[in-house]
Amino acid sequence: MENGGAKKECAFEKENGCGGGGGGVMKKKWCFKANESISSASGITIRGTLAMLMGSRNLNDSRETIPLGHGDPSAFPCFKASLVAEDAIVESLRSAKFNSYSPSVGIQPARSAVAQYLSRDLTYKLSAQDVFLTVGCIQSIEVVVSVLARPGANILLPRPGFPIYESRANFSHLEIRHFDLLPESGWEVDIDQIKVLADENTVAIVMINPGNPCGNVLSYQHMKKIAETAKKLGILIISDEVYGHLTFGDKKFIPMGVFGSIAPVLTVGSISKKWIVPGWRLGWIAVNDPNGFLKEAKIVEGIIGYMNISTDPATFIQAAVPRILEDTTEEFFKNTISILRESAEICYDEINEINCIYCPHKPDGSMFVMVKIDTSLLEDIIDDIDFCTKLAKEENVIVLPGIAVGLKNWLRITFAIESPRLQDALRRMKAFCDRHAKQL
Amino acid sequence: MENGGAKKECAFEKENGCGGGGGGVMKKKWCFKANESISSASGITIRGTLAMLMGSRNLNDSRETIPLGHGDPSAFPCFKASLVAEDAIVESLRSAKFNSYSPSVGIQPARSAVAQYLSRDLTYKLSAQDVFLTVGCIQSIEVVVSVLARPGANILLPRPGFPIYESRANFSHLEIRHFDLLPESGWEVDIDQIKVLADENTVAIVMINPGNPCGNVLSYQHMKKIAETAKKLGILIISDEVYGHLTFGDKKFIPMGVFGSIAPVLTVGSISKKWIVPGWRLGWIAVNDPNGFLKEAKIVEGIIGYMNISTDPATFIQAAVPRILEDTTEEFFKNTISILRESAEICYDEINEINCIYCPHKPDGSMFVMVKIDTSLLEDIIDDIDFCTKLAKEENVIVLPGIAVGLKNWLRITFAIESPRLQDALRRMKAFCDRHAKQL
Repeated sequence: MENGGAKKECAFEKENGCGGGGGGVMKKKWCFKANESISSASGITIRGTLAMLMGSRNLNDSRETIPLGHGDPSAFPCFKASLVAEDAIVESLRSAKFNSYSPSVGIQPARSAVAQYLSRDLTYKLSAQDVFLTVGCIQSIEVVVSVLARPGANILLPRPGFPIYESRANFSHLEIRHFDLLPESGWEVDIDQIKVLADENTVAIVMINPGNPCGNVLSYQHMKKIAETAKKLGILIISDEVYGHLTFGDKKFIPMGVFGSIAPVLTVGSISKKWIVPGWRLGWIAVNDPNGFLKEAKIVEGIIGYMNISTDPATFIQAAVPRILEDTTEEFFKNTISILRESAEICYDEINEINCIYCPHKPDGSMFVMVKIDTSLLEDIIDDIDFCTKLAKEENVIVLPGIAVGLKNWLRITFAIESPRLQDALRRMKAFCDRHAKQL
Repeated sequence: MENGGAKKECAFEKENGCGGGGGGVMKKKWCFKANESISSASGITIRGTLAMLMGSRNLNDSRETIPLGHGDPSAFPCFKASLVAEDAIVESLRSAKFNSYSPSVGIQPARSAVAQYLSRDLTYKLSAQDVFLTVGCIQSIEVVVSVLARPGANILLPRPGFPIYESRANFSHLEIRHFDLLPESGWEVDIDQIKVLADENTVAIVMINPGNPCGNVLSYQHMKKIAETAKKLGILIISDEVYGHLTFGDKKFIPMGVFGSIAPVLTVGSISKKWIVPGWRLGWIAVNDPNGFLKEAKIVEGIIGYMNISTDPATFIQAAVPRILEDTTEEFFKNTISILRESAEICYDEINEINCIYCPHKPDGSMFVMVKIDTSLLEDIIDDIDFCTKLAKEENVIVLPGIAVGLKNWLRITFAIESPRLQDALRRMKAFCDRHAKQL
């Protein structure tokens, strides 16, 4: 028995034995160090970038900070959650029937309610078995990416996009191939580029509709073309519809599941945005695949398997889902849409009054707009990070640099905020750009 | 551009091109298939085994099903959650201040409250920065295992143990080395065996105290010996204290963090068991490392990085944590402990009245006891799975086969249930064993 101990102690003698250690007088070697896939995976995150910008503010500036960086308007009074949703949670909590663990795929009544809710927009019916409940859309993405990440596989991700896809793919060693969204075509997909990028190891393409970060809404014809391309390439579509129904332009929201009989679709969504409760952490994965290809390829089995070794949304929140989905009034949604429509217009109009920045496409949906910076017109701004850091410092306005979503020298601006504060922020941005403009 | 499309279509011609496909008249090839690490990782789970047993019941049996298989007593009225905890949740929800996303490591007041709560039992003080909030202890395990799983590393896991550690290690390609808990020494660790198992790639040892599945509680002296061994081996200790304070024998619960200055300790825990609300999904990771070795080895950075790309507990549940930890009455805990003490005694005494099964150690803590089956005394029972399947079918009693926690021909029995139902279950088990006993 002493053998083993001795063997191990020898390892400490070696100069290049186990890592870590050091510090203090007694040099002690420790064998643990962190998995390096994590630092590369979590490199650029929206949270991290916004935290850096918050730290760049001038704390002597007496004006309030105006946050146009993140997609969470729940802190603003005009976007308060509905009483119906709150009551549903209190009722399920007070019943004391939902303090137990839930099944790893979610409780049946909630799965069934989500299936019914999503089926309203489809030409076929989803069943409870097609729906898996998650701890918000972030976990939906984790599950789907982990299941698809077999060795050698690659995935097509949009640029600009939502960086959690990149982080999770990097962590799972799933190769990323980016395709461009085209600003001059209303941020449509470059379909020819997709055909060039894909090969026999491509497993899926991610679409985010309504668009984050672009604020675009896809048309029926364009979506059909994407589905047909996916079929041709033998890949599935991951349709991120976390901003589903949040549209206020000419184009109606159409779920990708409508095309599920052309190519299989995994839809990821949540109550976070439409009900304005991102902190409640309730999302889903829906299998839109009337032909059963995903079942056949054991993707559905993989989802269940991964969920068996993962955590679940709080059971009493799951239990409130049927009431939240069925009883929230149309009035509540109309109010949100009307605020977003007004804000989007203010945002688009006033940005195009500002020199040095330019918005190629007026948003039709979600809560964001992408704005291009023309650094050649600016005196002392080298790039988008420099722009955002100086804007935070000089004007107390937080805006996300485009590099955080894959596009250097662009900005992602959130307009889900009360109009007067949005107008104030845009005035400050104008003053900032005027001050930094080259004198011609 | 057509090039790429053509290239891809060629792949479909190859017989062994991308996988999946088939079914129906039109043979269509799909390139996706599930990541095989998942099916191997989620092989044996407690949930899966219990679901199988529930399916084995005789539905014509009019007696109620008695579930002694899982560690969740929240469904039994005598283990109802405290009103204080419920009120704390309602208050934070109704305030409408906690509908937003939380920081990925958790909100500050909740981290601070957990740090204070854990510090009560330590000789030094944890700060809020030492605590990371998770979606229950399952996510704590996911985070810790993912962070430690650098290529080539191995981890020491107890046998019997809690299978999520195995699943997560398998999924992350972290090599598992099992050490035995010794029934004849009150399920203490075989320290000599640990020294033999460890090498320079060993990064951590997992301890579960109070014990799941063994119901044992570790002594101060034994824990100190484990910490000193860990120091010698250069490894950290993952101390799973999800059953912390649930002790009712002679031994008091001592957190492993007490020995954090000997070897660094990552403590994982939650409100699930002590407050009997496993469905609320609120857990933590606490860094017990006064010497800062884990920070130095970037383990803390790895935890933060992994949490940046992972989901979080519901924000309004986090916001209720300070009140839940501070205001729950001693009465509530005393009631739980008193029920568990009584049940443990009944369980131990009555099991040892049954021929063919044997309990080597009376439980001092948690909600479980391990019981050995002597198959040589049974006529037609080949192993523990056979025992449990027939018991479910013939007696409507659900008990977990030991193989699900790593010990073949043992049983894990939960005694966290009202005494009359527990006694009924044990009577049925006695009848079952008598009926299947060899006639000598």
